[in-house]
Amino acid sequence: MSKALELARHLETLHINNMYKDDFFWTWDKTDDEIDAIFTVADALRDLREHNKSTRIFDSGLGISIFRDNSTRTRFSFASACNLLGLEEQVLDEKVSQIAHGETVRETANMVSFMADVIGIRDDMFIGEGHKYQKTFIDACEYGYRHGILEQRPTLVNLQCDVDHPTQCMADMLHVIHEFGGVENLKGKKVAMTWAYSPSYGKPLSVPQGVIGLFTRFGMNVTLAHPEGYEVMPEVIEIAKKNAAASGCEFKVTNSMDEAFKDADIVYPKSWAPFAAMEERTKLYQKGDREGIAVLEKKLLAQNAEHKDWTCSEEKMKLTKDGKALYLHCLPADITGLSCKEGEVDNSVFDRYLDPLYKQASYKPYVIAAMIFMAKVKDPVKTLMDLDASDKHRKIY
Amino acid sequence: MSKALELARHLETLHINNMYKDDFFWTWDKTDDEIDAIFTVADALRDLREHNKSTRIFDSGLGISIFRDNSTRTRFSFASACNLLGLEEQVLDEKVSQIAHGETVRETANMVSFMADVIGIRDDMFIGEGHKYQKTFIDACEYGYRHGILEQRPTLVNLQCDVDHPTQCMADMLHVIHEFGGVENLKGKKVAMTWAYSPSYGKPLSVPQGVIGLFTRFGMNVTLAHPEGYEVMPEVIEIAKKNAAASGCEFKVTNSMDEAFKDADIVYPKSWAPFAAMEERTKLYQKGDREGIAVLEKKLLAQNAEHKDWTCSEEKMKLTKDGKALYLHCLPADITGLSCKEGEVDNSVFDRYLDPLYKQASYKPYVIAAMIFMAKVKDPVKTLMDLDASDKHRKIY
Amino acid sequence: MSKALELARHLETLHINNMYKDDFFWTWDKTDDEIDAIFTVADALRDLREHNKSTRIFDSGLGISIFRDNSTRTRFSFASACNLLGLEEQVLDEKVSQIAHGETVRETANMVSFMADVIGIRDDMFIGEGHKYQKTFIDACEYGYRHGILEQRPTLVNLQCDVDHPTQCMADMLHVIHEFGGVENLKGKKVAMTWAYSPSYGKPLSVPQGVIGLFTRFGMNVTLAHPEGYEVMPEVIEIAKKNAAASGCEFKVTNSMDEAFKDADIVYPKSWAPFAAMEERTKLYQKGDREGIAVLEKKLLAQNAEHKDWTCSEEKMKLTKDGKALYLHCLPADITGLSCKEGEVDNSVFDRYLDPLYKQASYKPYVIAAMIFMAKVKDPVKTLMDLDASDKHRKIY
Repeated sequence: MSKALELARHLETLHINNMYKDDFFWTWDKTDDEIDAIFTVADALRDLREHNKSTRIFDSGLGISIFRDNSTRTRFSFASACNLLGLEEQVLDEKVSQIAHGETVRETANMVSFMADVIGIRDDMFIGEGHKYQKTFIDACEYGYRHGILEQRPTLVNLQCDVDHPTQCMADMLHVIHEFGGVENLKGKKVAMTWAYSPSYGKPLSVPQGVIGLFTRFGMNVTLAHPEGYEVMPEVIEIAKKNAAASGCEFKVTNSMDEAFKDADIVYPKSWAPFAAMEERTKLYQKGDREGIAVLEKKLLAQNAEHKDWTCSEEKMKLTKDGKALYLHCLPADITGLSCKEGEVDNSVFDRYLDPLYKQASYKPYVIAAMIFMAKVKDPVKTLMDLDASDKHRKIY
Repeated sequence: MSKALELARHLETLHINNMYKDDFFWTWDKTDDEIDAIFTVADALRDLREHNKSTRIFDSGLGISIFRDNSTRTRFSFASACNLLGLEEQVLDEKVSQIAHGETVRETANMVSFMADVIGIRDDMFIGEGHKYQKTFIDACEYGYRHGILEQRPTLVNLQCDVDHPTQCMADMLHVIHEFGGVENLKGKKVAMTWAYSPSYGKPLSVPQGVIGLFTRFGMNVTLAHPEGYEVMPEVIEIAKKNAAASGCEFKVTNSMDEAFKDADIVYPKSWAPFAAMEERTKLYQKGDREGIAVLEKKLLAQNAEHKDWTCSEEKMKLTKDGKALYLHCLPADITGLSCKEGEVDNSVFDRYLDPLYKQASYKPYVIAAMIFMAKVKDPVKTLMDLDASDKHRKIY
Repeated sequence: MSKALELARHLETLHINNMYKDDFFWTWDKTDDEIDAIFTVADALRDLREHNKSTRIFDSGLGISIFRDNSTRTRFSFASACNLLGLEEQVLDEKVSQIAHGETVRETANMVSFMADVIGIRDDMFIGEGHKYQKTFIDACEYGYRHGILEQRPTLVNLQCDVDHPTQCMADMLHVIHEFGGVENLKGKKVAMTWAYSPSYGKPLSVPQGVIGLFTRFGMNVTLAHPEGYEVMPEVIEIAKKNAAASGCEFKVTNSMDEAFKDADIVYPKSWAPFAAMEERTKLYQKGDREGIAVLEKKLLAQNAEHKDWTCSEEKMKLTKDGKALYLHCLPADITGLSCKEGEVDNSVFDRYLDPLYKQASYKPYVIAAMIFMAKVKDPVKTLMDLDASDKHRKIY
């Protein structure tokens, strides 16, 4: 039995009826079975591609990507996922830093979606705005579909918002599952999601939030560590706590990087901006107060600089389980002595984990494709089986 | 009988032999049957897509789009149309404001067209230049094809020039046909194509010109209204007059918005620049006279500001037939109190017509696809029937 | 027998086993049979397309293009080649002038290649850097493939580096073969690859180097002519000498344009920067010495201006064989009296050769497609025969 067929049979055991025609905003909107389904389909699509099976589920159609922040890897992951399924990517280049106006979004959403099967949006710059923009956008598409304007209702894939970064964190998790030889081996493992110093400021909170919101579902003990003042959104803390209680694990917040790293099986040290400051920045942008923004940024950089010891050094790595925790990063990292003088991680640590880091990233296109697949295909089990049994090849000759 | 089949049978009754391998510059180049054919094929392609039939007529091939002015919706409409037929869109980004040099155009045209099946060009900025550029471009492709340089002769689709905006106006008209329940119900209806105030200046004349050049062919009484000084190109006025005479309707030009709106069944209030000023601007650009341009723009804004009462207010709407004329706009509109302080239309009017406005826009991809289809397919009737009968799906699973 | 079948049979006689899964950096890496194979497949793909046969060898997949220098025609040629074979082009826009850092390249290479079948890179700006960047990039992909990060190992196509411009020179050569009625008619023909004045400076050396490195393999007597100070890379001179010895022809370097043009069958007059100055510029860029660069550029322009008599005038053309040598250019040319006051070629000369010049360019998409084809298809002879025998059409209806 092929791996894809095995995965299709596993998919058959899951409750996944609500995924058809649904969107993907946040992982905590989804049931455990639904999360499992994404991983299963991602692995199946990868297996089919490895065996040169065509995974086109579309003969034509568009995947629209909207990046309200710069992006290389997420953009290519989305384009790759679309191509894998038979969709052509079209980029909507907004080149607008202004915060979303509901009315304009409503119009744009319909104008670009006449033949769109998927909409991927990255909008992570402003607290309280990113998710709202995505929701407004897809609500407008829903409206357009119901009113005969759009022939189809595109599916939204959140390519990063102010709250969650599900395509990243799902790829991270799928990587962890494979590194540990299966989801059944994760119970009781310790994860350190920690802040780390970077010479830049203002990195989104969506990765740490996404990680604590997802990893706590797998019975792993998750410690979130950051200096005072770098708290994440309280709503997500609540979600992590609830997840931990449900999956029978511990979720802790601490201001000590060492405590988090101590005996950790997995470490995810990365920089992010303080939530309160990001909220302040959003308000300054809304007022168009450029001077205020400049002052705030200077303050943030100074605040960051007080915590240069929060770095994933060789010393810190020695604190982890056998000194060999799995090091994760969403990339690109600020690497001490390589891309900057002082950064998130020692060059020697980063370099030692290059293979797993790149593998971690390699799951993202398949995770995105799986999200699209589950939203678009009526009978995903049968479809996987059909694709596996078909003699249609991706590389024809 | 499926709707697509019904439409294919209607297509069979039309004289359309000259459309194969032809371009689409201006609607008035086309016979009534040819215009009818575009509408028929657009509706058929939409019906096929609604029923998940694949409408790929190409296995590979490129649609090149050239936007010499910014564009979101026309760009996405063109990309969507190409994708619908199996072509990949490639954008030629000229980032050049300079006016076309014949020699350069000749070379560019050949260099980007080696595998191009369609060329879509938007060049609407300069009176006397936009159409010329498109003509020069496609003549160069014709030359290349006849001299063994190009394997195929691409079809030109005018995505807006200085004279006409056929993909827009054909979409507008198809929308009107459907809103009124068929082309047979249009006879005697009154259309008000009127100027409206906008805080910007220099909007192209191609929409009002396109509308009076097309809508007068359907037996509708068309009134063109604008303040003094906002005259459109006299050649197009002549075409509208001739059309009106042929279709047995009235074509009027007036300087009163009220007169136009009075008992109108359809209103199309939108801003455009004065033709004479646009001609002046073209000359200033050709001389590279930046100071002259700045002076002219200031003058135009002041001239505009004298006519702020030319706006599609609730008051004005009351003048129309039962106060319920169909409101048209090519979008985006300058909406009073929403996108600007004083603009083309009241927010409440615009909002009431949101559904029909978005539907109006939704026809554009299909109209463009129909133009390509008629130029590329040798036996369009048989092809539509084949696509309808085929079990090839757009969404395969 | 179809032309494509004939070409497939010719391909069968060649030793081409090493081309599968290989890259294309420089023509001199390839054996005579391998060069012949590219020409043969390029002609076959063109014949298949002319006869409306589908040449899709991929059902899905990406071709990534990276242009570290501006490009229109090479970009469209690459996009066309990808589309012809069933790949979707995705552009990686680096917008970076900085010289490649190994580590960053390694990461980018993997991040964009998860579903990439081909990588096309143009990096021609800096001596000693362009090829290095391409090599570093593809080595990183090789690494990623061997370490389970990438599902497939993409093929590199050099779209121009600091050393060679193989897609250009192979297209040039294929054009020459057809113009002279077959490769067997080239023996003893004289080729003048000469420098020519242009009002710009700093054009890459890759075209003259590519031409002398390739044309000397066909038994043609090649003269490289340039003013003192415009020497090309000594390594490539050595290659040209070795080629000439092997193919039994003469390779000469001279400082006289007249000597090169005298009785030439083919002339290729074009501007390039002096190698030594380009090396200096690379160092200045590495140091970030903007002032030094400005001074150097001024010096280069002054140096250029001393050689305005190096131009392909009507006078010079009279020196060639019967005054009718085949004029080649990679385009765009600096045309005296058309695109500049004094340039590489007289307007009347350029104009007389317009058809062959455009035909020359028309081979590039097919040459690129052939490079991809040979690297990706396991049994190219059988595949060409299958494509020829298939009833799958490119234009389906």
